[in-house]
Amino acid sequence: MRDVAIIGVGMTKWGEIWEKSLRQMFVETAYEAIADAGIEKLDGMYVGSMSPGLFVGQEHIGALLADYLGQKNMPAGRVESACASGGLAVKCAFLDIASGNSNIILAGGVEKMTDVSGDGATYALATAADQEYEVFHGATFPGLYAMMARRHMHEFGTTRRQLSHVAVKNHENGSKNPLAQYPFKVTLEGVESSTMIADPLTILDCSPITDGAAAVILADMETAKKVARNNPLVKIIGIGHASDSIALHDRPSLSGLEATRLAGERAYKMSGKTPEDINVAEFHDCFTIAEIIVLEELGFCPKGKGGEFTEACNTHIGGKIPVNTSGGLKSKGHPVGATGVAQVIEITKQLRGECGDRQVEGAKVGLTQNMGGTGASSIVHIMEVL
Amino acid sequence: MRDVAIIGVGMTKWGEIWEKSLRQMFVETAYEAIADAGIEKLDGMYVGSMSPGLFVGQEHIGALLADYLGQKNMPAGRVESACASGGLAVKCAFLDIASGNSNIILAGGVEKMTDVSGDGATYALATAADQEYEVFHGATFPGLYAMMARRHMHEFGTTRRQLSHVAVKNHENGSKNPLAQYPFKVTLEGVESSTMIADPLTILDCSPITDGAAAVILADMETAKKVARNNPLVKIIGIGHASDSIALHDRPSLSGLEATRLAGERAYKMSGKTPEDINVAEFHDCFTIAEIIVLEELGFCPKGKGGEFTEACNTHIGGKIPVNTSGGLKSKGHPVGATGVAQVIEITKQLRGECGDRQVEGAKVGLTQNMGGTGASSIVHIMEVL
Repeated sequence: MRDVAIIGVGMTKWGEIWEKSLRQMFVETAYEAIADAGIEKLDGMYVGSMSPGLFVGQEHIGALLADYLGQKNMPAGRVESACASGGLAVKCAFLDIASGNSNIILAGGVEKMTDVSGDGATYALATAADQEYEVFHGATFPGLYAMMARRHMHEFGTTRRQLSHVAVKNHENGSKNPLAQYPFKVTLEGVESSTMIADPLTILDCSPITDGAAAVILADMETAKKVARNNPLVKIIGIGHASDSIALHDRPSLSGLEATRLAGERAYKMSGKTPEDINVAEFHDCFTIAEIIVLEELGFCPKGKGGEFTEACNTHIGGKIPVNTSGGLKSKGHPVGATGVAQVIEITKQLRGECGDRQVEGAKVGLTQNMGGTGASSIVHIMEVL
Repeated sequence: MRDVAIIGVGMTKWGEIWEKSLRQMFVETAYEAIADAGIEKLDGMYVGSMSPGLFVGQEHIGALLADYLGQKNMPAGRVESACASGGLAVKCAFLDIASGNSNIILAGGVEKMTDVSGDGATYALATAADQEYEVFHGATFPGLYAMMARRHMHEFGTTRRQLSHVAVKNHENGSKNPLAQYPFKVTLEGVESSTMIADPLTILDCSPITDGAAAVILADMETAKKVARNNPLVKIIGIGHASDSIALHDRPSLSGLEATRLAGERAYKMSGKTPEDINVAEFHDCFTIAEIIVLEELGFCPKGKGGEFTEACNTHIGGKIPVNTSGGLKSKGHPVGATGVAQVIEITKQLRGECGDRQVEGAKVGLTQNMGGTGASSIVHIMEVL
């Protein structure tokens, strides 16, 4: 298997972007990544997008975006694993290069969610749950994650206040990220008194509906060393991918995320790293409870202790393991197909030392964890700066 | 790059399958492939599906189908390139194994199209065209391919009768395929007097709306030699993938399929084969005109001569290059995401000598060509029996 490095990253401002179409958002972002890499021509592209069909009535965006990028004729396809689609794009790009089939591949992600037609964004997002056994009976994602939160509180004594700490910390980080959708701070009391969505989760426990795109350029090490401009090379040293039942009721436990645990184990094994080696991480905090459970499943704290661990500021910048320095899905936004790619961008920038006010000093090894549905798909990447 | 072989194939009857859900259809088919391969456990899965979101309101089918297959926790994702989604699944599975990341991968395809809700199957299919510049103005796929047919007739003198020969030959082949949706013969006059859909294309020039699934199991050569039961091993020796503008009006010519030409060139180069070496082929005959143009673009006859070449029976079983021995999309059916995988199944069976009445004697090397939209995505696989 050939070594693969990240040689360029690109991301534009996320939010409610009424003035740009899906293709415009993606192309601007991809150009940034191409310029950052200092290359011109791609060998191919994988685009993660959860449901352009339901959100904007357009499938077949692999070929469409290759054309609009001015790279017509290259191999281009879309990949989907609900909200883990971006992570899957990075994995597929990695394998394409690792196999020797290609040298330079763009892994992108895009979702245009705010001008959805038809049944709306909640319907489109719910198609990531089991349509026949969950959605048919009225389940939505806030409701499903609320059940996970309640169960975690019941089993381990996790508190409402501990959930709030996740939101406060991620908004604090996001306030230093000019590309974030909601770059403002929130308070513990503010989170707890905001609109109730699905008890115990308030609106400030939930990630928002977002328009956005993200792109990274991957290359084999030989090409990377040749073309990389002034950027330090960031090597992808571990990839772990696992699945679980998409219906929450089919799982032995509501308070764990088995696919995340397995994806983590696989990525640690491939990279030869352990949680102690990780200097900075981006987690899939679609809801505050998710970040707490992921901390546990990836071995950063014991099972059931994620709330306490968070409350003790271990996940702050300067703490034991800074999590979601970008602001996470909570503050940065969550254009579902783009999220997994944006996580890889944040870690790449951290490892290159480009994060300014939110830089984790001396970060050498970073991790991303991207998740689909209520955790039925999970993809973990581990990266190291050379 | 490691060598990759096809060690198992599975396909169930295609048609209007009201009594089974998407997950049931897929699982039955995948079990057949697993049994044919003589294995138990998969290392991962890629599922091609164009739009389960629009057709049945369910995204995230990678994890869903892994679970229903009894292989929960394995890495599983969906890939999409409109009607070339199945071909993309095979390509991704190939790269996963070729890279050394996995040993045994299932590449599947599925689409449940007949009980579509919402705006219907024509709307869902049209999302493979350019929504903003084609569909908005009323374009549908029969209309777009009708323009390609008219232009081909204008430039090269291709006749209405020559189009009919494609339909008659493919239904003749399909009548020998018990899994085909429409396993009956048609006549030249029958095609020409059937309902007009988009002049010059009648309903018997068009592939149908179909429910169906297909699955193949790929393995690295070492594993393949260990586990393969009595099946001859079929090696994938070439993969070519290319894209084009998805909007027909953006292309320099309406009468060609540039992405198919490029995908063919890439697959021929990788495999070291030429059109003369190919003994049997499956083409993406979504409309009769498509088969004629693909013949030309893949080098089986000169540009503009596809109609004549077909009329002279060169593509019949026993002819120079038998095309669509399975019945093709025309007679076998076209559950869009499954089609590319089913093409690989037919060629595998031909190379193993298992095609009974429609067997091409002594076939050693075969080719598949799978296409999305009006040809904006094209994926060519070349296979050889060991």
